[in-house]
Amino acid sequence: MRVFICGFGTVGQGLCEVLADRAQFFLDRYGEPVIVTGAMDSRTFILAPQGIAPLDLVARKKGSGRVGDESYTDSTAVLEQAEYDILVEVSPTDVKTGGAGLVNITYALNHGKDVITVNKGPLALKFCELISLARKNKCKLRFEGSVAGAMPIINLCHENLKGERISSIRGIFNGTCNFILSKMDKGQPFEQALKEAQQMGYAETDPTNDIEGYDSACKVAILANSIFGRNVTFNDVKITGITGITDEAVAMAASRNMVIRLIGEISETRLEVGPRLVPKGHPLSISGTLNTALIQADLAGPITITGRGAGRIETASAILSDLIAIMDERRNRR
Amino acid sequence: MRVFICGFGTVGQGLCEVLADRAQFFLDRYGEPVIVTGAMDSRTFILAPQGIAPLDLVARKKGSGRVGDESYTDSTAVLEQAEYDILVEVSPTDVKTGGAGLVNITYALNHGKDVITVNKGPLALKFCELISLARKNKCKLRFEGSVAGAMPIINLCHENLKGERISSIRGIFNGTCNFILSKMDKGQPFEQALKEAQQMGYAETDPTNDIEGYDSACKVAILANSIFGRNVTFNDVKITGITGITDEAVAMAASRNMVIRLIGEISETRLEVGPRLVPKGHPLSISGTLNTALIQADLAGPITITGRGAGRIETASAILSDLIAIMDERRNRR
Repeated sequence: MRVFICGFGTVGQGLCEVLADRAQFFLDRYGEPVIVTGAMDSRTFILAPQGIAPLDLVARKKGSGRVGDESYTDSTAVLEQAEYDILVEVSPTDVKTGGAGLVNITYALNHGKDVITVNKGPLALKFCELISLARKNKCKLRFEGSVAGAMPIINLCHENLKGERISSIRGIFNGTCNFILSKMDKGQPFEQALKEAQQMGYAETDPTNDIEGYDSACKVAILANSIFGRNVTFNDVKITGITGITDEAVAMAASRNMVIRLIGEISETRLEVGPRLVPKGHPLSISGTLNTALIQADLAGPITITGRGAGRIETASAILSDLIAIMDERRNRR
Repeated sequence: MRVFICGFGTVGQGLCEVLADRAQFFLDRYGEPVIVTGAMDSRTFILAPQGIAPLDLVARKKGSGRVGDESYTDSTAVLEQAEYDILVEVSPTDVKTGGAGLVNITYALNHGKDVITVNKGPLALKFCELISLARKNKCKLRFEGSVAGAMPIINLCHENLKGERISSIRGIFNGTCNFILSKMDKGQPFEQALKEAQQMGYAETDPTNDIEGYDSACKVAILANSIFGRNVTFNDVKITGITGITDEAVAMAASRNMVIRLIGEISETRLEVGPRLVPKGHPLSISGTLNTALIQADLAGPITITGRGAGRIETASAILSDLIAIMDERRNRR
C-alpha cells in the first residue's frame, strides 16, 4: 500500500514514527508493507516511487526544517507526479477557506485515490461536497483524527453503533478549554489558568481559536455532517466561548456540586458550542486536557467515550486506525 | 439470515423487540430479513423453519410463561432439529459449570454455526476452548454483551483499536456496586444503599454475586482472554468485594477529594477485582449504575468508554451490533 503524506508538521512526523513502529504489524496482517512514496511540507516535496523509510523523512525535516529537496508552488502539480494509493492530508488547517488541505483532498478524490485526513478546515466547510466526490469516484474519505484526536468517536458511531439511532452527541472537544476550566474549579482565575495552559504548550500564543470555541465548533460541524447526515458548515454553529466565565460562576456551580464545561451539542436540530453546567460525577464532568463525547443512542442508551484530543502520536493513532480500516476493506474485497 | 434464540428471559425478549423494530434496517442494509426460526426457554421450545414474528414469541412468553408448546429435556436434541445460521445464546448464566449455555454454544459451534452470546459463565470458564472450537469450524463467536452490556468494549478494542498495543484495562464492570458506592459517597451507610439498590431492582434478593465481586470477576476473565490473549478462568481472578468498605473509608476518601470504586484490572500479568481510590474528576470516578472501562493503549493513550452495563434493550443492542458485524462480514465475503 503506497501512501503520500501532505503536511509534515508534528502529525505528519508522528505518523512516520508510527508507521516505522508498526512495520511488522502491516506485514503480518496484510502480507505487504505500507510504503511512503513521498511527502510535502508547506514549501518543499520529495518523491520516492520505490518508497522512503518514514524515519528518514523525519530526520530530513528535523535536520533541515524541510522534508524535500525541491520547492513547489502548486501542490497539485506535485500530486500529479506522485504515485500513491492513499493520500494522508495533515497540512495546517484553514477554517476560513479550507486552504491547501481542501485543494489536496479534492485533487486526490478526483483522481480516484482514498484519503485520510485530520484537517478540520476542509471538513468543517465542504463536508458534503467532499463526501459526494468520494462516493462518485468510489473512494474512501476517512477522518477519525479530525475530531478529538485519538478518541475514536467517528468510527465508533459508524461501526460499533451502526444499528443504533443516535439522537444527540454532547461533548468536550477542546482540551485547552477543559484544562482552563479544570484549573478554575480549583480556584485559579481565568487569566492565570490560560497563562498556565500556554506555558504547558496546550494553548497557542493567540488562544482565540480555542477559548472562543471556534475549534470546538469545527468538530461540531464535522460530527453533524458525518453522524447525523446534516449539511452544515462551521458558520452554522452557534458559538459561545469561555472568556465570559467568571470565578464567581465557577464557585456558584461548585456550591451546587457542579462544574462548568465547554460543551459542543449536536442533534437533528441543534448545533451549538457553549459553557454548560455539568453535575460532578457525570461522564461529561471530566477534568484536564481530555476530550469526551456522550452519544445518546436509542437502544444502547448513553455511551460516553473519553480520550486524548490532541498530540503528535495520539493523532497519528487515529490515522493508523483509518489506514487499517481501508486496508481491511481492500483485503476483504479481493 | 436465520436466528435461533436459546434463552427467553428479559434479554431474549428484548432482542425480539429490537429485531422487530429494526426489520426495515436489515432489509435496507442486506436485502434480506433476519428470520427467527425458533426459540427455547428453560423448559419449552418452538421450531418455526419458515420464521415466526419476534413479537409473537414475546406475546407467547408473556401470556403463558412459556415460549414454546413442546417441552424438552435435552436442549441439543432441540438444536438438532432447528434450522438456523446464527445461534443467539442468552440463557441464564452458570459460573460454576457453564450450564446449558456452554452445552448450547459448544453444540452450535461443533455444527458450523455462528454464535452470539451474552452468557458470562461459559466464557468465563471455557473461553479458549470455545474460541478454538469456533476457529476450527470456521465460525464466528461474538460476545459483546457479555461484558458491560451496551458499552461496546470488546468490539472497540478488536476493531477501532486494532492497531494499538493495549497494556491494561481498568474498569467498573458492575453497576449495582457502583450504585451502592455512589450512595455511600452521599453519606448513606452500606446496608441502606444495598437495600435501595434492591428496591430499585438493581440488586437481587441475594446480592452476593454482585457485592462480593464475582460478577465483575467474570467480566475481567472474559476481557483477559479476549483482549489480552490470555488463558484464564473466573477462578484465576483475585477478588475483593465491597462489603468491607466502611462509611469511614468513604469519608476519608472524600476528604482527599477521592471516591472508592470497585475496579476490575486486567493486564498481561494482573487479574484483579477490588475497591480502589479514584480521584474525583477521573474518568473512573463516575457515579450511578453505569459501567466504564479505561483502556491504556500505546499510541492513543488512555481511552475510556462508559455506558449502561445492564438492561433488557441495552443488552439486546450489544447482540444487534454483533449480528450486524456477522452479517457485514458474510456480505463482504460474497
